[in-house]
Amino acid sequence: MKIGIIGFGGMGNWHRETIAEIEGLEVAGIYDIKEERKEYAKECNIKVYETLEDLLGDESVSFVLVATPNDLHKPIAIQAMRAGKHVVSEKPVTLSSEDLQEIIDVSEETGTYFTVHQNRRWDEDYLTMKKIYEEGKLGQVFRIESRVHGSRGIPGDWRQEKEHGGGMILDWGVHLLDQILLMMEGHKLNTVYATITNVTNQLVDDGFTTILTFDHGVEVLVEVGTSNFISLPRWYMLGQNGTAIIKDWDLSGEIVSAAGKDEKDVVPVRTAAGLTKTMAPRRDDSIHTEELPIVKSDIKDFYKNVMGVIQGKEETLIKLPEVMRVMKLMETIFLAAEKQQVLEFEK
Amino acid sequence: MKIGIIGFGGMGNWHRETIAEIEGLEVAGIYDIKEERKEYAKECNIKVYETLEDLLGDESVSFVLVATPNDLHKPIAIQAMRAGKHVVSEKPVTLSSEDLQEIIDVSEETGTYFTVHQNRRWDEDYLTMKKIYEEGKLGQVFRIESRVHGSRGIPGDWRQEKEHGGGMILDWGVHLLDQILLMMEGHKLNTVYATITNVTNQLVDDGFTTILTFDHGVEVLVEVGTSNFISLPRWYMLGQNGTAIIKDWDLSGEIVSAAGKDEKDVVPVRTAAGLTKTMAPRRDDSIHTEELPIVKSDIKDFYKNVMGVIQGKEETLIKLPEVMRVMKLMETIFLAAEKQQVLEFEK
Repeated sequence: MKIGIIGFGGMGNWHRETIAEIEGLEVAGIYDIKEERKEYAKECNIKVYETLEDLLGDESVSFVLVATPNDLHKPIAIQAMRAGKHVVSEKPVTLSSEDLQEIIDVSEETGTYFTVHQNRRWDEDYLTMKKIYEEGKLGQVFRIESRVHGSRGIPGDWRQEKEHGGGMILDWGVHLLDQILLMMEGHKLNTVYATITNVTNQLVDDGFTTILTFDHGVEVLVEVGTSNFISLPRWYMLGQNGTAIIKDWDLSGEIVSAAGKDEKDVVPVRTAAGLTKTMAPRRDDSIHTEELPIVKSDIKDFYKNVMGVIQGKEETLIKLPEVMRVMKLMETIFLAAEKQQVLEFEK
Repeated sequence: MKIGIIGFGGMGNWHRETIAEIEGLEVAGIYDIKEERKEYAKECNIKVYETLEDLLGDESVSFVLVATPNDLHKPIAIQAMRAGKHVVSEKPVTLSSEDLQEIIDVSEETGTYFTVHQNRRWDEDYLTMKKIYEEGKLGQVFRIESRVHGSRGIPGDWRQEKEHGGGMILDWGVHLLDQILLMMEGHKLNTVYATITNVTNQLVDDGFTTILTFDHGVEVLVEVGTSNFISLPRWYMLGQNGTAIIKDWDLSGEIVSAAGKDEKDVVPVRTAAGLTKTMAPRRDDSIHTEELPIVKSDIKDFYKNVMGVIQGKEETLIKLPEVMRVMKLMETIFLAAEKQQVLEFEK
């Protein structure tokens, strides 16, 4: 099966490398408007289509990947579907839920398969936390915090511009929110509070914090920061009986839970100004520390699923109602931040 | 100068120990309703008054400390002021701003001095972060996070009961909010969002998270947790050019800021599912790490100030309008959490 890559920037190239390792799938060629990227493709011995129409007209191409700036996903996806191609779009799929609906309509009308590269569903930090949540290792979970922190601001290209769909809610929020909605599957997201930052960029958000409350009492903080010279942990999950942490991308972290025996004679913490037993650390004999149950994954499964769907053998892993729910949540986050209000999402 | 201690529990005893080190101040005696605490006082060679009236009638007593359960601060403080005594109350001063106003009215009517033991203004973690904020070490600060995390739930006495003023907003929130309002001095607190937890106690909050936005664009997260088996950092402060962290009560932490030169050739972080330059760690040559400028303090200055005020030599350090502002903020936090709304605080 052959794929045409439309937009051969950093992510387009990442796809090329991933596809190279998948049996039965190969890159037919790429299309890009930048000379330097065309040159790079040629250096990689990859065919360069001179026009988008050439790529879409190539009958050997089963499906295309759209890895352009975000605002172009919609017109290109629609053009490709009308040309009879199945489509994988990079994320964020569109800049609005209305735009996504247009794509869904064309997909239904043309009978072509459309899906979105929600690749971070395969991130092992996420899968590990999801496993801890589902297995009830911490007792009843009441709070989850998911953060990514960098310190370089946002990338200095179209990602800094609103009309191209820049900003961190669309760039990273789309992953973190998708992960949380899947982790909380079967539950309604009741309320959304959010604030955004404009530290290094005034045109689009360069970070945000949102607090989501679900109908089963779980509260989730999702945060992206790009002016954070020290990072807070990637994941932090609180249950009645224990806490799980993933500190960094390297999956370092642990689970600490109550060891079942009450502590007697708690030694208070003394600070310059007072003492506290409530906030004193636990003694080692009253807690139990264990390693994280790391879940392994293979991102190639994304493409294998796309191929399986096209061959009529599998159901799609990335479902459009899920993608639509994330789009609507991002719109609600923008609105909640702008209005400085808690907004209802799903009653 | 002699002080009478009313309520000789854990904090009452902490005061006794602190007072023992202050020149010119001594404990006249204590009053408590519990036999075991009277016995303990006698073991410490401290006079035990049989009744509150006995203590308040002792002309050698210049002022009293009220360190009873929170709901008793008001009636005892008022009784003491009417008996001509100056009063130091433990925190939270009262259970409502209305109750505090009653105290203030009696203080004015009787011409007695009333103040509150907001001891954590002397905590060195707070003073250190305040210094970093004020000196502009991080460039323009846009976010501050102040947390205390424990894992034992809330203490198993009157602190678990609403009618006695239990719960973490009143117990720890009163400190953390007081610190933040002082750090943001001169600025209006515009909006308040808050959620509370009831993990180990259904009668009072056993934790809370609040996000406060100030009129100069600083956003502050204040959080207390009592089911946190792994603690997040005590302080986290983000400025345009750097980040400061205090990890724990031991004042471990650091400041990391941009070293002034741009990084070229950022090495992306590769995870199982993708790559990111935006969230990749900095190389050491593009950041500057420095030690925290630790500020030392002496909690005895609180009592020295109380003595100075009574002697007409000093202005009070803990001012009642400040205490009232914190009381009103705590009321707003309760209301914001109950209504699930962002509330305006000071326009």
